[in-house]
Amino acid sequence: MNKRNKLKIINDPVYGFITIPSELIFDLIEHPYFQRLRRISQMGMSYLVYPGAHHTRFHHALGCVHLMRKAVSILRFKGTEISSQEEEALLVAILLHDIGHGPFSHAMEHSIIEGVSHETISLKFMQSLNDIFGGRLDLAIQIFTKKHPKKYLQQLLASQLDIDRLDYLKRDSFFTGVAEGNINSERIITMMNVADNELVIEEKGIYSVEKFLVARRLMYWQVYLHKTGLVAEQLLIKIFKRAKYLKNNSVAVESSENLDFFLKKNVSESQLNSEILTTFSKLDDYDVISAIKKWTTHKDFVLSNLCSMLIDRNLLKIKLKSKALSKNKIAEKLKKVREIYQISEEEATYFVFTGKTSNTAYRAKEEQINILYKNGKTKDVAKASDQFNLKALSQPVVKYYICYPKFYN
Amino acid sequence: MNKRNKLKIINDPVYGFITIPSELIFDLIEHPYFQRLRRISQMGMSYLVYPGAHHTRFHHALGCVHLMRKAVSILRFKGTEISSQEEEALLVAILLHDIGHGPFSHAMEHSIIEGVSHETISLKFMQSLNDIFGGRLDLAIQIFTKKHPKKYLQQLLASQLDIDRLDYLKRDSFFTGVAEGNINSERIITMMNVADNELVIEEKGIYSVEKFLVARRLMYWQVYLHKTGLVAEQLLIKIFKRAKYLKNNSVAVESSENLDFFLKKNVSESQLNSEILTTFSKLDDYDVISAIKKWTTHKDFVLSNLCSMLIDRNLLKIKLKSKALSKNKIAEKLKKVREIYQISEEEATYFVFTGKTSNTAYRAKEEQINILYKNGKTKDVAKASDQFNLKALSQPVVKYYICYPKFYN
Amino acid sequence: MNKRNKLKIINDPVYGFITIPSELIFDLIEHPYFQRLRRISQMGMSYLVYPGAHHTRFHHALGCVHLMRKAVSILRFKGTEISSQEEEALLVAILLHDIGHGPFSHAMEHSIIEGVSHETISLKFMQSLNDIFGGRLDLAIQIFTKKHPKKYLQQLLASQLDIDRLDYLKRDSFFTGVAEGNINSERIITMMNVADNELVIEEKGIYSVEKFLVARRLMYWQVYLHKTGLVAEQLLIKIFKRAKYLKNNSVAVESSENLDFFLKKNVSESQLNSEILTTFSKLDDYDVISAIKKWTTHKDFVLSNLCSMLIDRNLLKIKLKSKALSKNKIAEKLKKVREIYQISEEEATYFVFTGKTSNTAYRAKEEQINILYKNGKTKDVAKASDQFNLKALSQPVVKYYICYPKFYN
Amino acid sequence: MNKRNKLKIINDPVYGFITIPSELIFDLIEHPYFQRLRRISQMGMSYLVYPGAHHTRFHHALGCVHLMRKAVSILRFKGTEISSQEEEALLVAILLHDIGHGPFSHAMEHSIIEGVSHETISLKFMQSLNDIFGGRLDLAIQIFTKKHPKKYLQQLLASQLDIDRLDYLKRDSFFTGVAEGNINSERIITMMNVADNELVIEEKGIYSVEKFLVARRLMYWQVYLHKTGLVAEQLLIKIFKRAKYLKNNSVAVESSENLDFFLKKNVSESQLNSEILTTFSKLDDYDVISAIKKWTTHKDFVLSNLCSMLIDRNLLKIKLKSKALSKNKIAEKLKKVREIYQISEEEATYFVFTGKTSNTAYRAKEEQINILYKNGKTKDVAKASDQFNLKALSQPVVKYYICYPKFYN
Repeated sequence: MNKRNKLKIINDPVYGFITIPSELIFDLIEHPYFQRLRRISQMGMSYLVYPGAHHTRFHHALGCVHLMRKAVSILRFKGTEISSQEEEALLVAILLHDIGHGPFSHAMEHSIIEGVSHETISLKFMQSLNDIFGGRLDLAIQIFTKKHPKKYLQQLLASQLDIDRLDYLKRDSFFTGVAEGNINSERIITMMNVADNELVIEEKGIYSVEKFLVARRLMYWQVYLHKTGLVAEQLLIKIFKRAKYLKNNSVAVESSENLDFFLKKNVSESQLNSEILTTFSKLDDYDVISAIKKWTTHKDFVLSNLCSMLIDRNLLKIKLKSKALSKNKIAEKLKKVREIYQISEEEATYFVFTGKTSNTAYRAKEEQINILYKNGKTKDVAKASDQFNLKALSQPVVKYYICYPKFYN
Repeated sequence: MNKRNKLKIINDPVYGFITIPSELIFDLIEHPYFQRLRRISQMGMSYLVYPGAHHTRFHHALGCVHLMRKAVSILRFKGTEISSQEEEALLVAILLHDIGHGPFSHAMEHSIIEGVSHETISLKFMQSLNDIFGGRLDLAIQIFTKKHPKKYLQQLLASQLDIDRLDYLKRDSFFTGVAEGNINSERIITMMNVADNELVIEEKGIYSVEKFLVARRLMYWQVYLHKTGLVAEQLLIKIFKRAKYLKNNSVAVESSENLDFFLKKNVSESQLNSEILTTFSKLDDYDVISAIKKWTTHKDFVLSNLCSMLIDRNLLKIKLKSKALSKNKIAEKLKKVREIYQISEEEATYFVFTGKTSNTAYRAKEEQINILYKNGKTKDVAKASDQFNLKALSQPVVKYYICYPKFYN
Repeated sequence: MNKRNKLKIINDPVYGFITIPSELIFDLIEHPYFQRLRRISQMGMSYLVYPGAHHTRFHHALGCVHLMRKAVSILRFKGTEISSQEEEALLVAILLHDIGHGPFSHAMEHSIIEGVSHETISLKFMQSLNDIFGGRLDLAIQIFTKKHPKKYLQQLLASQLDIDRLDYLKRDSFFTGVAEGNINSERIITMMNVADNELVIEEKGIYSVEKFLVARRLMYWQVYLHKTGLVAEQLLIKIFKRAKYLKNNSVAVESSENLDFFLKKNVSESQLNSEILTTFSKLDDYDVISAIKKWTTHKDFVLSNLCSMLIDRNLLKIKLKSKALSKNKIAEKLKKVREIYQISEEEATYFVFTGKTSNTAYRAKEEQINILYKNGKTKDVAKASDQFNLKALSQPVVKYYICYPKFYN
Repeated sequence: MNKRNKLKIINDPVYGFITIPSELIFDLIEHPYFQRLRRISQMGMSYLVYPGAHHTRFHHALGCVHLMRKAVSILRFKGTEISSQEEEALLVAILLHDIGHGPFSHAMEHSIIEGVSHETISLKFMQSLNDIFGGRLDLAIQIFTKKHPKKYLQQLLASQLDIDRLDYLKRDSFFTGVAEGNINSERIITMMNVADNELVIEEKGIYSVEKFLVARRLMYWQVYLHKTGLVAEQLLIKIFKRAKYLKNNSVAVESSENLDFFLKKNVSESQLNSEILTTFSKLDDYDVISAIKKWTTHKDFVLSNLCSMLIDRNLLKIKLKSKALSKNKIAEKLKKVREIYQISEEEATYFVFTGKTSNTAYRAKEEQINILYKNGKTKDVAKASDQFNLKALSQPVVKYYICYPKFYN
């Protein structure tokens, strides 16, 4: 295959077309490690609320490449020098930034590969691909690990207004049909600039930044933390907790070879060798959902019930509160579940449980979004806005929830 | 023409289709009073900044009818009784709510028909049409004048989240291409309800209301108060001030008969008889722009220069500041203009002037947007939001500007 | 749960919102039979070409309900009487019209459940649900089986311009991002009417019908019959053919219990009892893809190779021709594959094979699209169009293809 | 003003953003000749049918610049060499290609500036601007006048699939809300290539070309030749015919100085000197509509009646037929009008008249759209399409109309 054939154009309902800009990007996309992302849903269980939300991490990664090219082109137009090597490194880094995500990773990080973040696994994959591609990912890894002297390059990759967010918020809004979450990613990018080695937004973009933060908060509460999605995710966590428990107690719990590997043993970061990485690279949504489907007929009452709830979308009831629930109320619900289901107290905790969820729209302390004024000075957006109270948006909002079977009212 | 023929469908790029729901609405649209609105631009001089912004008040009024029907249908679905007479009255009232707008009315209210609001003139038109249509507008006028016992009906017509705003923000965002101003009007309407005789928004709509307020503020600063639009509007005011001044000093200033009428005499509300209303009903953008085109060759230096600036889009320079400019600086600029143009001090004030403009995103004091909770209680959105600081959005933002010819730097 | 709670609004990126119009529809959606459609992709393997094409049959069915309601409302507006029972029956029938689809059904109908159409299985499901819901689906089944005296009701369900096509073409165009396939379903529906008990399109809709047919043809050649999708589907067929062959020859080929059932035995229509229906109702994309993933490591060279091709998207090469390939050329390619892979002639046919594919944009002979003129007469659109040569579009277009491994050029 | 400031970004609802790519383009846009296009509606009287259709030739010209840049970039990507001088010349030529349009030019070319095409006047303007800009438009004029050796450059400017059409069809579809006329201009451009010095479309674009032709035909019959727009245009022609007649017979008919100039004298191409060009450059929609408004009260029965019809949108009735009307029927209608209006036979012909209108979707004879095959050969799209009968689309469709006052039935 000659080089020309690798210059491909891909249809994307969000941006119209995405062009594959280089042979290296093309070859990375072709690699089975990356192809796996076609089988990893971007939004986990959210399709139970928003039936359109079946888009994948594969698609998001391509969208990020598209936006990153726009950003590079805008910054160059405004006089920032970005070499073609740096551009390719940025594109590679954004293409692979999520490659370490496992299936339903928000739930899985609490149950399967405990304590190892997806960023860590992404880096392992990049390093492995760097070996395969003869060191051509060196610069990308340098940016990804925040070791590049041009700070704005890594801010394009990871900051409060990075390309990742500019794609996923727009894409998730698009596929869920939650039109209010739609952000004008391309417009925000046209407002980007570099000042003092940092990525900044020009003054006239201030209202767009505000709107971005409000849209982001809206997406959190209406989509990412939607109570039905929340309860589905908790069920997933409980299911894997139960499966591991049963396995530890010598009860047969069948699943695919790859999934079984991770159910049997806890993998810590230091154990993440290339063999385990290969096994991980074969794990996707199909392993998880197939296992759950199989377990709907498992003889263990807890496991089979939890699994049926998820498959038939007959979920636990969930209530959101602004305060934590009293212990008495929880105990009362646990008691009733024990009676009706005829199960042990410990088993009842799979069906009645509480938790909390929180979101902060703007984390001013961690890393600011800076506004560049015409006089060349920069200011944190929270102080730059004439009116918009970003101090308020900087406070985390915490909501408490309780889940329990539907026979309760 | 039989009734069937009056059930028309009109293409609208914003909503797809707008259906004309009744014969009365159809006949009102056909009336020359309403047809005039085809020649009144919705956004005045904004097309000098946003070349797509040529949509008319005619189009906006039809869009309002479309949204009002949706609102009535949603409220009925949720159990609020709205009779078919009340529905038609609402549709008539929203169709005609802006019929009193003259051409470039923001500028003209300061220069042509001083001190008479367009709402007052709209009411005069409604009363006149009510005579023509044999009293069939009685109920519409009752709602428009806030005399109807069902308060939520008039709130649909005029409040902080009324149908008027839900259409014009969306429509103006659409035609300007300022996509961030796009609001999801149809979604907000699905969240409407009635509690205690008042229009409210259901709890789950709270983020949508916030986003609406932020989008509204964005539209104000990026579109309605855009500095180029601002200076064009000020030029228009100055042009008519000058034209009146010249007429008062017996200098011939030709314009169309209808415009000439209003240039010659100041009309107060009490003088608004049916004859004057008829003259007003013939006044539109074409009278104003044609006059300005003609005056570009007027012998008066001030008038012809101001007019050429507008026609050739070679406007005064404008600077926005957060504080008022010092008198010294203004005097300095006035002096230079006098010297270069060789004009009097009074004449120089047509070319160098200052002003201020302000906007308040949410006027909590005047009329609240109330959120309805599942327990039946309502709360002002400024207090209901977990995080969003609407107190901040309730503060007016004031900006000061100065305009002067471009030979200054 | 009271009735009110069942009146739900679902976000849909295609239409904005879809309202669940009745309790029966709500309960049918909740049933596990229907929930399964969440796990059946609408477009099979097309996501290998169009990464956005992950939408499901669940979503399509809801979209159909939405459009069907519009159609009923338009026909009533134009004077056709449709009772509320008939309306609900139409909605039920369209909701369930695809419930008999298995995973990747185009491929599977040739390999797993040979010779039983998905319409037949849909009807079995409807009958089963009719038992569960106490006969409330009687009228829906009557329309679905074309036994209702009002012919236009069944034409809304199944004809050349039915609600099914109006949704899937629009939806598939939306999710693939092939914008030229976008059809204006809502506009076409506003042109529908009834004449002589038949569904017709009003005269002014003639250009829209033409555009619909051209868009449909475009979608066929650019999407549904795209060569990459075609080769993926053929691989799927070959994989299952091989799996069955191995099983028949006592080689262990593991898969989920449900899939294994259909691999082991051929089911004919007469054998489709309720037990088999229940097994079928548990079969979805996850069974199929999980099996293929597992088989990538199968010891059979043919099976494991075909499976890896699909999982890693490293497909066979495919060439489309307007004429069938000469037998010599095929024999030559088969020979080379045998040599390189060191496999038998029969095994080589899994890697080198030919076929043909065809499409007819408008099947005038089967059932016409009739245009209604203002004088009340109707005419076949192929004759009504002033210019558009629908005779041409009525000819089937046949294309021949050959597939073979990529080491050939 | 430094060069940096001239690199502007303009919001466009159709494409999102349009970038002004060079200082020369910026300065041409600023020139009063071009600014006039802000006051020339693109679609004449069509807003009487489609209330959104108020976009201007100014906007269309900017859109063309945007698409032309895309086309140049695509052709370069595919290996065609286009120098930066040639690119700028293309952009200048497309920017100015319609600058010679007068107000309501389709009507005016038959009544005001008889027999001089807008292309001729565009060239005059280009030559005048070339003088002003010191010969920097030489190359643009060479392309515009088809004297450039690279034929594909002028085909980008003027052919059956040129940038002009790709913008106006999309833009007119957008603003009218006739969504079926929407074409995917950007996709068609990605299919462009050059073969044998000619602009061609690559093989895979064949369906898109077909869809473009069908959309174009749809726009003609549903929009450009819509009967209400047609009758409005005819009224405009009649109005100016009457105004000229009255002037020739010494009846005072007032209008703006610029319009009056063209009403008084017929200008032939050879007379088009720079003075007349300057007068023409001041003529816009405002002169025309203002005159018509003024004439609604003219003492001449014919003139005032025709004008009122247009202003109040109380138009003549129009009927479209596939054959010409019999002379008897016309005579009968003329007679009735004479009796009711009490006017002369000659005067009656202003109210009762016939005509014909025609459209050819694809003019194969004039200039083909050529399809480029992978083997390097090209073929006329009418022959290349497997099925689509472009011979049919190549036949002109003629429709006859008759207009008469509404008191007839």
